[in-house]
Amino acid sequence: MTLPSKVQINEEGPREGFQFEKHHIPTQRKIELVDSLSKTGLNQIQVASFVSPKAVPGMADAAEIVEGFTAAPGVTYLALWLNDKGFERALPFKGKISLLGSVTLCASEPFLKRNQNRTMEENIAGVDASLAKYREQGVPVERGGLMAAFGCNFAGDIPVGHVVSMVDQAKSLVQKHDYTLKTFTLADTMAWATPQSIKRVVGAVQDKYPDLGIILHLHDTRGMGIANAYAGLEMGVTRFDAAVGGLGGCPFAGHKGAAGNVTTEDLVFMCEEMGIDTGVNLELLIESANLAEDIVGHPLPGSVKLGGSLRRLREKLKAA
Amino acid sequence: MTLPSKVQINEEGPREGFQFEKHHIPTQRKIELVDSLSKTGLNQIQVASFVSPKAVPGMADAAEIVEGFTAAPGVTYLALWLNDKGFERALPFKGKISLLGSVTLCASEPFLKRNQNRTMEENIAGVDASLAKYREQGVPVERGGLMAAFGCNFAGDIPVGHVVSMVDQAKSLVQKHDYTLKTFTLADTMAWATPQSIKRVVGAVQDKYPDLGIILHLHDTRGMGIANAYAGLEMGVTRFDAAVGGLGGCPFAGHKGAAGNVTTEDLVFMCEEMGIDTGVNLELLIESANLAEDIVGHPLPGSVKLGGSLRRLREKLKAA
Repeated sequence: MTLPSKVQINEEGPREGFQFEKHHIPTQRKIELVDSLSKTGLNQIQVASFVSPKAVPGMADAAEIVEGFTAAPGVTYLALWLNDKGFERALPFKGKISLLGSVTLCASEPFLKRNQNRTMEENIAGVDASLAKYREQGVPVERGGLMAAFGCNFAGDIPVGHVVSMVDQAKSLVQKHDYTLKTFTLADTMAWATPQSIKRVVGAVQDKYPDLGIILHLHDTRGMGIANAYAGLEMGVTRFDAAVGGLGGCPFAGHKGAAGNVTTEDLVFMCEEMGIDTGVNLELLIESANLAEDIVGHPLPGSVKLGGSLRRLREKLKAA
Repeated sequence: MTLPSKVQINEEGPREGFQFEKHHIPTQRKIELVDSLSKTGLNQIQVASFVSPKAVPGMADAAEIVEGFTAAPGVTYLALWLNDKGFERALPFKGKISLLGSVTLCASEPFLKRNQNRTMEENIAGVDASLAKYREQGVPVERGGLMAAFGCNFAGDIPVGHVVSMVDQAKSLVQKHDYTLKTFTLADTMAWATPQSIKRVVGAVQDKYPDLGIILHLHDTRGMGIANAYAGLEMGVTRFDAAVGGLGGCPFAGHKGAAGNVTTEDLVFMCEEMGIDTGVNLELLIESANLAEDIVGHPLPGSVKLGGSLRRLREKLKAA
């Protein structure tokens, strides 16, 4: 099996992490993390989410974060929103952050209810209205995604056929507004995936839509994150979401314990050691991970920040 | 790629874990963990190591542990030793523990020096003398192994050809004493392996010795443990060492941070979710992992003990 020669990593630590932490974190420290990540070679960083401050108090300062960080050349900065209200809060920052619309569906109705307080039908209608709004505002839409694509704590296993039909739906919705879907995120929101189900689901979507760029968004709640990423690489997937230090988790997934995204520096370590170019300087990224840990004030799950990079060890051995 | 239908997991948590912890743990609590593991369906448990009490104070009570636990039918109990002195301390417990000799070599001379204070030559001579002793005592020898097979913090990368030639050496040594090597452990002692190097090294050994049963011993120091196990499964490997909760680490590997073995319950979770039979009851194993955490008195790295089993979630959803 040939692995890809290059991957694109979307850093989501600032957004994933600060929405999840229960105690107050000063805005300035959130900005400090974004600025640190900007120096690592990561070229796409999601900095904040414009969501309800009542539901997600840790992101009440989304606007201040976006205002405060220093944009580095060559880095795309993104923000998340889940409805029109959020989109309108993000709109004034067009330019500093790339306002890219997306179509996000959810494979599980009970999770959709908890996460966005919408039924499937309401969600489709909401997405349709958002697309109209994006068109009106001249916001490009190339990205789609599906939450709970591999299983759900509230709905159980998700049949592969259901995932493919949700991709169909996303494609039709986007086409209706004269956009074209270029990438599609399969999100293992509640960590049900195994390397085998990654291969099964990714394979089914690739079979039907060979030109659609699949992005894997992998939560590490059951320790499968890196193995699932490896299975993705074996399927030719070249785009991954990840969070520095393993920050974060979804506040509505109903987990205890480490529910964060796959750890960026562990993913970079695996890729680089297998000869896959990430464009990231692992040593600088480990510094960012240590900073993230200092900011949240508790141990984060990532391993490589403790185990250390092998490149550094090899240099030390060569010099000795 | 077809995955195996069944795997054999060798539980090494009690030995790996208690040799690593720096504070005193009462013997009775170590015994409690062994007894708990005996009820999970695990059928091979390494309970202690007869090593120098000066070098590894946490295993000074090896004899008391072996005396104290309650052997369950159908479970093989093992102990580790690294030299004749250790073997002699284990000998009186023949019957309660299975005294199986083995030939353990090391791919890295500097690590061998730190771990066993031997040169390569001294180690070969020592192993040769041990084999003579095993023959004399009627102890069967079917197992070989290689430490640092995927890389070493003190010697760097290990060429695949070197690994294969060390397997050759182990085979010759064993044959000289009229034994036959049936299994061979490739140990990633210092966590240098990636899924790619697992496939490369396992493949090279399989090519030369297709009848030799490969055992993978994977440390999780850089977060690759489960991904490396998956790569092993893809190569048809059906035997894995693992440690409940992710206990342990090698006291001489020179790491900070989580240096433990791949976590048993995470490995069981992955296998069972992919339809690979482990013979283990995951819910009972999670209870053992929680007990292990209570005994060592600090968080252990395993994820599934926090994320929970999916089987239990599925049952809950079905009942609702």
